[in-house]
Amino acid sequence: MGKAQHEDNKVKQKTSEFSLVRVKSTWKRRLGKKLNKDTAGCVSAAKIYESVTEKGTTWTVVSPITFTYKVTETQGLLDPSNDTLLLGHITDLQQLEDIKKSNKPIKRFVVTDQEVYKIYGPKITKYFEANNVLYKILALPTTEENKSMEMALKILDEVNNFSLDRRTEPIIAIGGGVCLDIVGLAASLYRRRTPYIRVPTTLLSYIDASVGAKTGVNFANCKNKLGAYIPPAAAFLDLSFVQTVPRRHISNGLAEMLKMALMKHRGLFELLENHGCMLLDTKFQADNCAYGCKAASQATRIAITTMLEELAPNLWEDDLNRLVDFGHLISPALEMEVLPSLLHGEAVNIDMSYMVYVSQESGLLTEEEKQRIISCMVGLELPVWHEACTMELIQKSLQDRLKHSGGLVRMPLPVGLGQAEIFNNTSYEILHRAYKKWCDELSVSSDGSSDH
Amino acid sequence: MGKAQHEDNKVKQKTSEFSLVRVKSTWKRRLGKKLNKDTAGCVSAAKIYESVTEKGTTWTVVSPITFTYKVTETQGLLDPSNDTLLLGHITDLQQLEDIKKSNKPIKRFVVTDQEVYKIYGPKITKYFEANNVLYKILALPTTEENKSMEMALKILDEVNNFSLDRRTEPIIAIGGGVCLDIVGLAASLYRRRTPYIRVPTTLLSYIDASVGAKTGVNFANCKNKLGAYIPPAAAFLDLSFVQTVPRRHISNGLAEMLKMALMKHRGLFELLENHGCMLLDTKFQADNCAYGCKAASQATRIAITTMLEELAPNLWEDDLNRLVDFGHLISPALEMEVLPSLLHGEAVNIDMSYMVYVSQESGLLTEEEKQRIISCMVGLELPVWHEACTMELIQKSLQDRLKHSGGLVRMPLPVGLGQAEIFNNTSYEILHRAYKKWCDELSVSSDGSSDH
Repeated sequence: MGKAQHEDNKVKQKTSEFSLVRVKSTWKRRLGKKLNKDTAGCVSAAKIYESVTEKGTTWTVVSPITFTYKVTETQGLLDPSNDTLLLGHITDLQQLEDIKKSNKPIKRFVVTDQEVYKIYGPKITKYFEANNVLYKILALPTTEENKSMEMALKILDEVNNFSLDRRTEPIIAIGGGVCLDIVGLAASLYRRRTPYIRVPTTLLSYIDASVGAKTGVNFANCKNKLGAYIPPAAAFLDLSFVQTVPRRHISNGLAEMLKMALMKHRGLFELLENHGCMLLDTKFQADNCAYGCKAASQATRIAITTMLEELAPNLWEDDLNRLVDFGHLISPALEMEVLPSLLHGEAVNIDMSYMVYVSQESGLLTEEEKQRIISCMVGLELPVWHEACTMELIQKSLQDRLKHSGGLVRMPLPVGLGQAEIFNNTSYEILHRAYKKWCDELSVSSDGSSDH
Repeated sequence: MGKAQHEDNKVKQKTSEFSLVRVKSTWKRRLGKKLNKDTAGCVSAAKIYESVTEKGTTWTVVSPITFTYKVTETQGLLDPSNDTLLLGHITDLQQLEDIKKSNKPIKRFVVTDQEVYKIYGPKITKYFEANNVLYKILALPTTEENKSMEMALKILDEVNNFSLDRRTEPIIAIGGGVCLDIVGLAASLYRRRTPYIRVPTTLLSYIDASVGAKTGVNFANCKNKLGAYIPPAAAFLDLSFVQTVPRRHISNGLAEMLKMALMKHRGLFELLENHGCMLLDTKFQADNCAYGCKAASQATRIAITTMLEELAPNLWEDDLNRLVDFGHLISPALEMEVLPSLLHGEAVNIDMSYMVYVSQESGLLTEEEKQRIISCMVGLELPVWHEACTMELIQKSLQDRLKHSGGLVRMPLPVGLGQAEIFNNTSYEILHRAYKKWCDELSVSSDGSSDH
């Protein structure tokens, strides 16, 4: 979004730039940059441009909003002596001291997935009881099939009955990506923005949903068709939740990690290639054992920092050229088509697997690099092919992409291991040859049993 | 929202500041400000701060998003030769030229109020036909009672069926404030943000809903409890729509105009005092007659510029001290309580009328100033008192305000004519004395027939 521009050069017009200066309780506009130095502390970053033509006046408002959010690694998040969950989002030291000194009990509304509640319910309850918190825990079946505005409204009904202070009492979401996305949307809508906190309990949400600003629900059978770009006040990451995640769901998270590896970080790729099986076996819990290797924390940290690198400069996705879209061009349609048979990361991996073939067919990856990537995927126990991922579905998805990405397909493709670029002119011939080769080589190994 | 701060001084930690630099398709973080000058063009305004303690790492993301929107006065908006409605939101000259040269028909989804459609439907249809636009017009009963998420979802269903390009095909809303608010919310949710255009057809929405960033629907019997702060791409203002607005609804709009006058602009107050009746009689259409006076355009322009002055520096209402809240402390509860008997501006005026008494009782306004304000209100044919506005309702509203405004009531009060300040310590005694006096003096004149 650029500066104001003259919309019609033929029309005689005069554009004035106004700054905004606070004088007591009132904002006053001031022409140009001739601002009194005394008022320097009260000048807004916003501007108003006024163009007057014989047709009338146009005011152009340019107003920056700064989003600040934290992503914090912690241990023992549900240990009653750890106050991160209650206070870790607060950045103002004075406010933090005031709360600690105050006798007023803290109030928190918590939404969690009902499966998560079965495992962690007693611990969560105990945590709030021990900290003398006025709380309400809402446990919901936050599955992909239920990821709807109806569920967001159900949450909002309960939030409204609970009557929280929209400024200082953030809504806490504890669960996987679906739970975090729905709660994020509900909070963003409530009183036009209520802060919320993300506590991911799956590997996928730990490195993906927690890190960015996106919220959403499915609508009209399309993934995340409705949503907002409002980051949480904070995401609190405790890797110990992952120990109760089923093995298949750990693979699911590894797919998004592999995405960041392929796009941006050869070291992460090699970590996954060498330690993927161990990470699956130990459910990311081996770092503190006598194992010696810190693969779990290394891999998650690299996944998060590379993700933040791509998200922070493009929080609202105004730039359509996004490496993080790798694996997300075909997978949304595939995932919705076969729901609930593929998990999100599995659909992403099938998309990435095909794209690796496109990359190799385009001469961007060697045959050996391609083999290493596919072997790594198989080692992570991820599907590399699916019969529902037809050439028709691929073409339809890329056409949709074209339509919603300003007329360019903007296809991220790996160019070597751990680097990528964005391409717009991949021919149908290459897409088709890659598809054929992909099917020839991988269709038999779709159960992960091939010896790639 | 400030810079990252250390959340715990007792914990040994090291904070690093990273800038983000674009290298080909990839964003890379770079420590500190030591940036190569060659990359100057590709440095993001976002920052990432990384704090490492023995407990783990905290990343703080600081990412500014700049909103740019236009508010444009125009004449003959529905005249087929005026391309403002189709192209007036575009600020990029190259894009504008490309569209004008292109043979591809323009596509637009339009939502309008069904009463507006009865009057302007044929003109709107003719406009789009004459400009060879692929269009769909959805006419809905956008009343305060129907201002709900259900109606937003109904719009979204139709938008989704129409299949528009979320980047380049803005949704157009033509109607009063309720219509503009619901459509704004629907558009903001669709694909996490689809641009929309506001065309106000009432005086109230012309100077109020059109100018700011707020969207919303009612929820759980509370006004605008769900919504977003997403400004339109543009608001197109054509005062000729106001000629079909019923007289009572013009008074309704005058209330919000009077609000800006009382808070910020003595000249506007005097315009309304002297020409209010003429503006009502002529429905803001007399400027081009032989009348000689430009009161309609002067008054609307001052109302808009004063409103923009207050909104632009505080688009997301992070600053809770807001003069534009005058008349909006008690009126939301009053309006919902007696729905549909009071229009929004009427409820606002009753709130303002009481507050004027509070101001006078606090020694901020003279008796004469108070009288002039009340007389002006009566001249604008606005109610100045209502039996449902009880002391209980006032107290409950102020307590709610306290709760949602960080523990301070932040009450804007006029201090003289056309200036105001924000007060936090008005005593119950003053509120009560003002209430009694307000009832004594105005309860008989609630039909506007008193001789104030």
